[in-house]
Formats: sequence, structure tokens, C-alpha cells
Amino acid sequence: MPELTESVTQMMTEFARLPGIGKKSAERITYHLLRVPREDALALADSIRAVKENVRYCKICYHLCEDEHCDICRDPKRDKKLVCVVEQPRDLIAIEQTGHYNGVYHVLLGRLSPIDKVYPEDLTIAVLLKRVRRGEVNELIMATNPTVEGDGTALYITNQLQGVPVKVTRLARGLTTGSPLEFANKEMLADALAGRK
Amino acid sequence: MPELTESVTQMMTEFARLPGIGKKSAERITYHLLRVPREDALALADSIRAVKENVRYCKICYHLCEDEHCDICRDPKRDKKLVCVVEQPRDLIAIEQTGHYNGVYHVLLGRLSPIDKVYPEDLTIAVLLKRVRRGEVNELIMATNPTVEGDGTALYITNQLQGVPVKVTRLARGLTTGSPLEFANKEMLADALAGRK
Repeated sequence: MPELTESVTQMMTEFARLPGIGKKSAERITYHLLRVPREDALALADSIRAVKENVRYCKICYHLCEDEHCDICRDPKRDKKLVCVVEQPRDLIAIEQTGHYNGVYHVLLGRLSPIDKVYPEDLTIAVLLKRVRRGEVNELIMATNPTVEGDGTALYITNQLQGVPVKVTRLARGLTTGSPLEFANKEMLADALAGRK
Repeated sequence: MPELTESVTQMMTEFARLPGIGKKSAERITYHLLRVPREDALALADSIRAVKENVRYCKICYHLCEDEHCDICRDPKRDKKLVCVVEQPRDLIAIEQTGHYNGVYHVLLGRLSPIDKVYPEDLTIAVLLKRVRRGEVNELIMATNPTVEGDGTALYITNQLQGVPVKVTRLARGLTTGSPLEFANKEMLADALAGRK
């Protein structure tokens, strides 16, 4: 839009890059931000900057955190021998929200997908295998998504642990196959946890 | 979400404050920004900061600009004697996009609305009246929204100019009464401009 100033056009373009934000939404947000007090708009800008500056991955489980280790890994009440393997931090959060899990996690930061050129070395699989091989883990719950790629990732990890004394379980289906874990409701997830096999 | 870090929760909350962004959309945007390279996320943050730091109102017409005067007021090819009065910069842009207008503008920055406690002194009406009374304007096109408040605002301004030698016109209806001007299509707006009365 040549009729708007350069900064305004730039901001609108940046918003239109976000997922789920089309041109009309970006415009609406732009006019909103032009209108609100300076400090409100800057609070949004600063919150984005803070995330990119403060947030990193837990050195143990690769969940999001702002220190060396995440709150879950630091919690002395958590069962450190029980590790739930998820693809993404949002999956971890979905499981936490059931309130039915007291172990810790390992976040893979993705799933194996040869078609998208995602190979084992692109995920945090090596670190997970080390955790298990050090004898730190009694049970590994595979909670990757119930999709071809999620199943494949779980299978790959299971195969790598042949002969290692660890119990490997998979979330019971109860999940709708093909639908991402983050959209499962709490009850479905709680059942799937209880019925793991 | 206590399971996410403080910065992440803060960012999600800030996004959820934007118009048209619900909780799920804010989450989706948050995960997106966590994933993208640092510079991409900071580009968004910086674009918001730049807008709040650089953008101000044109001293003549109150359109958005980054200098003393906006591009339209500075354009020597524009007919300065023809002034189109709009509520908001977005209305100005809708009219510019018709490509059928060669005059200049006056942005009121709102419309009179006693119910919302918006009175003449809250808008840029005084500056507009000065522009007209100085004899700088031949014709004033009232292009406030075709709503009760938009019509009321146009009527108020027209009444203030009783006895001042200026032609006051109103955009022809062709606009759908009650629907905001920014959603009018180009053809409707072009017709409304041509048929002004």
C-alpha cells in the first residue's frame, strides 16, 4: 500500500507473515496498533524480543526454559526414571494439562521425516539414547503423534534401544489416528496415558 | 499456562490482546515465533517499534506520515482546493485505491459520538474549519461513514460552515448504509465519488 508510510507498510507485511494472519487481519491489527498507546504497542514488541533473548532449551530434556534446566527437570517431586518422549514443547504442555503424569520428558524437537529431510541427527535422539543408556531411565513412554511419521520416529528410537534394559511403552490409542496430539482433549490424553502398552 | 516460561506466556498474552486473535491463534503464532530464526522474530518486534517511533500525523490533514507533511499534501499535482473529509486514515486509503480522486484530504481521527463521549474537540474539526475559513478550499467532500454517527459528524461540520463560501458535498449513496467505508469495493467507492451531491 503506497498510501501508507513505509514503517506502517513494513509492520503490516511482518504481521501478514504470521500463520493464520491474512492481509485483512494484518490491516486490522495495524490500525489497532496505530491507535493504542505507545506503551501497549511496545509491550508486544518487547515481549517478542524477550522470548528470542531469554528462551532456550533445557539441557536435559529440551523443553523450553529460561535457565539451564526447565522447571519439570528441576522439580524434586517428579519421577526422573519415567520419561515421556514427545515431538514438541506443545505436546508436553498438552500432557501436563491432563494432570495425570508425574514423570519427566524428552522433547525431540520434531519427528523423523525423510521426505522433509529430517533425519535422526536433526532431532535430539542422540541425547535421549545417552540418557537411557546411562541407566537413568526405567520406562520410556513414546508419546509421538499418532501419525505415520510419529509412529516411525517411535519405532526408530525403540530399535536403537534393543538390548538396553528399559521398558518402552507407547501411548494407548484412544487418540484419533492422524490428528495431532495438541488437539486431543484432556480426557482422551488421560485415558491414553493410563492405557499405555 | 504455567508449563511455559514467563516470556513465552507473556508474549502469548500480548498477541491474544490483538483484534481477531483468539487464544488458539495466539498459541499458534507463539510456537511459530519460537521456531523461526531470531532475526525474523526481531524483524516483527522492530517493525512495531518503528511504527510507534516514526509515525505521526500530517500537520495539514492528519493523515499518517513520517515527516512534517504527508505525501499527498506534498504532491504538487494534487488539487489543494478540493478536500475530502474522512474519519480515519484507512478510509483515505480506500478512496485512494479507487484511483478516481485527485484532491487532498482531511482526516478527522474519529466521528462524533456523544454516547462514547467523543465531542468536536476530540476530533480535528477545529483545524479543518480553519483550513476552510482561510479560503483555501473550494469544495469539501464529506466522506464520513454512512452511519448515524458519520452522518451526524458531516452535518455538524456543514452547520459550522454556514455562511462560509465553500461548496459542501456528500458522497453519493451507492455505499451500503451501515457498512463501514473501508469494506466498500473500489467500484462502489468510485461511483459514490462521481455521483457526490
